[in-house]
Amino acid sequence: MAGQDRFATLVDVMTAYGLDAVALVPGVNFRRIVGRDFHQNERPLAVVVTRDGRQAAVVPHLEMASFATLKLDGDVFDWRDESGYEAAFEAAGKSLGRLGRVGVEGQRMRVFDFLALQRNLDCDGIVDAHAAISSLRLHKSERELASLREAIRLSEAALESALQQVRIGQTETEIEAILVRELFAHGAEGLAFDPIVAAGANSAQPHAQARADYRVRAGDALLFDFGGRHDGMNADITRTFFIDHVSDTDRDFYNTVLAANETGRKTARAGITAGELDDAVQTVLEESSFAEFRRHKTGHGLGLDVHEAPQIMRGNEQALEPGMVFTIEPGLYRLGETGVRIEDDVVVRADGVEVLTRFPRELRIVGC
Amino acid sequence: MAGQDRFATLVDVMTAYGLDAVALVPGVNFRRIVGRDFHQNERPLAVVVTRDGRQAAVVPHLEMASFATLKLDGDVFDWRDESGYEAAFEAAGKSLGRLGRVGVEGQRMRVFDFLALQRNLDCDGIVDAHAAISSLRLHKSERELASLREAIRLSEAALESALQQVRIGQTETEIEAILVRELFAHGAEGLAFDPIVAAGANSAQPHAQARADYRVRAGDALLFDFGGRHDGMNADITRTFFIDHVSDTDRDFYNTVLAANETGRKTARAGITAGELDDAVQTVLEESSFAEFRRHKTGHGLGLDVHEAPQIMRGNEQALEPGMVFTIEPGLYRLGETGVRIEDDVVVRADGVEVLTRFPRELRIVGC
Repeated sequence: MAGQDRFATLVDVMTAYGLDAVALVPGVNFRRIVGRDFHQNERPLAVVVTRDGRQAAVVPHLEMASFATLKLDGDVFDWRDESGYEAAFEAAGKSLGRLGRVGVEGQRMRVFDFLALQRNLDCDGIVDAHAAISSLRLHKSERELASLREAIRLSEAALESALQQVRIGQTETEIEAILVRELFAHGAEGLAFDPIVAAGANSAQPHAQARADYRVRAGDALLFDFGGRHDGMNADITRTFFIDHVSDTDRDFYNTVLAANETGRKTARAGITAGELDDAVQTVLEESSFAEFRRHKTGHGLGLDVHEAPQIMRGNEQALEPGMVFTIEPGLYRLGETGVRIEDDVVVRADGVEVLTRFPRELRIVGC
Repeated sequence: MAGQDRFATLVDVMTAYGLDAVALVPGVNFRRIVGRDFHQNERPLAVVVTRDGRQAAVVPHLEMASFATLKLDGDVFDWRDESGYEAAFEAAGKSLGRLGRVGVEGQRMRVFDFLALQRNLDCDGIVDAHAAISSLRLHKSERELASLREAIRLSEAALESALQQVRIGQTETEIEAILVRELFAHGAEGLAFDPIVAAGANSAQPHAQARADYRVRAGDALLFDFGGRHDGMNADITRTFFIDHVSDTDRDFYNTVLAANETGRKTARAGITAGELDDAVQTVLEESSFAEFRRHKTGHGLGLDVHEAPQIMRGNEQALEPGMVFTIEPGLYRLGETGVRIEDDVVVRADGVEVLTRFPRELRIVGC
């Protein structure tokens, strides 16, 4: 992208939300809006774009050559490690002049960037505009969807390969290592996030960390929540298996979650709200005999970021629209015993959703 | 760790820096101080510790079971997705009462956590105390060093395996994928960061991104900057090779960087400042015929985080002390032509440094 074009939709957002400027830091919004990403580290890098299309950037000297490839039109103020970044922020503030309200990405920008902007921008205030700025990524392009499909394809192939290597007596960390090796062997460019591989009682902790000292046993649930990345797009898949055999209670438990997952995939469509979708899914769980074991909402948006809008959550009035991508991941958790979560990734189409994940959902016994 | 003990050194830091409380968010300081880490996502989680040892935590309901394993003494205020986090921050603020200055991790905490604290803590101000809080991680324990040695060992083994698979005509992304697969095959629990694999002109961009459309050629420099993670500790290693052959200019260029690297390893010792070390290394580059191609400081601290204190940078008066770990990574970059960087990881000992990285540094031809 060249010239101002890349900022046209960002300017629309500023107009809609009453912002006079937006300050972007490296991350997925930066990648989508500006055109490439940078490491987020101890060196601040920020691009301020005003509603009238002016730009000023603060860039570590080290990154100047990479930054130049973006071909931005505005002023660029670089700074070197030995002299610090304050003067660059000050010069950027002067170059921008008097501003109204400035929006920033509250869930991405860090406090030291924020304070540097606060000290050096002459403005009416800096506000958290994370949702507004991220709304630019709500609708996925067909190209992004193709990348996501590939991320999911390789992730599912890796899961199948890993499952075939699972044996009673392995530790959770051993199984996690197998999964990660298979993800890269199948072509992942990175991990969407550190995978969750949790067995037995650990499966009942939604964000469990794999244990090096727990060996999986017959009858354990074995939960995988993971994803590979392809061309920046992240898969996010959960499947829960049972090792060697499954108890009757766990089978009922599993099938309750599966019913909720199925309701989610069948209910989701353009026109209903994210809140209505969560309500339909939660109702299945609430009307079951396991209602007390609910712990979280149905899902979250997915794309360049693993957790983004739309949140599939009661009370969210956001209407689902074609091109939005999100997870459907109901779960139930009996603390100290068993957790089950079944997570699919879907894209909204005109008449329902296309389910991007294809890994079978029927209860499966592994490890024997 | 149980009870208040884990916060004893944090309280010392508060006293030294005139802070009345510290608010921690998930990340490496949290891991080191509180005892385990949490995902940093769209759900704020924070622990406020006061100088007199009181604690209040804001925790997403989803994480309550994991959080309980920490066995903190203070009040815990959980919040659910459907009702939002404001009330939990408000209750935490009331529980803590009137506070003086509150320190936060400016390079880690995000703006939405910061603003929630600002709205709800009754205090004299919230300040960036990143360096003060992170100073708790400056000195590595022998256990941490053992983990780092293992991270380095597996990373170096992975590099050697990858090098043996490099061929003229492969793309940078293909070579990167080989390296990543080898890292996991050798037992990495994760990547310290997305590796840099850069050939030819791309090697002259310090934070280059691998290109899918550039095939490596005879005479190219081939730079790897990467690391595996083990038990939370991160290796960070750079080696630069040449494919098929090396020009006389590139050989001189390489050996200049090698001389600077060697000076760094021989100069570093307890008692000198980080600034003096950088000065010694930079002087080698400045007195060479390639002085104009310098672009960055000598190195940075390394541990649970990949970029931490001490910064090995002119002007940094921080004295090097036994147990500090950092990189020595001089580089030279002829834009559009060739970049060379040679990076080692060292730990300060009483009488010099122990060089943890062992991969040979002599100029090496690969890919033929």
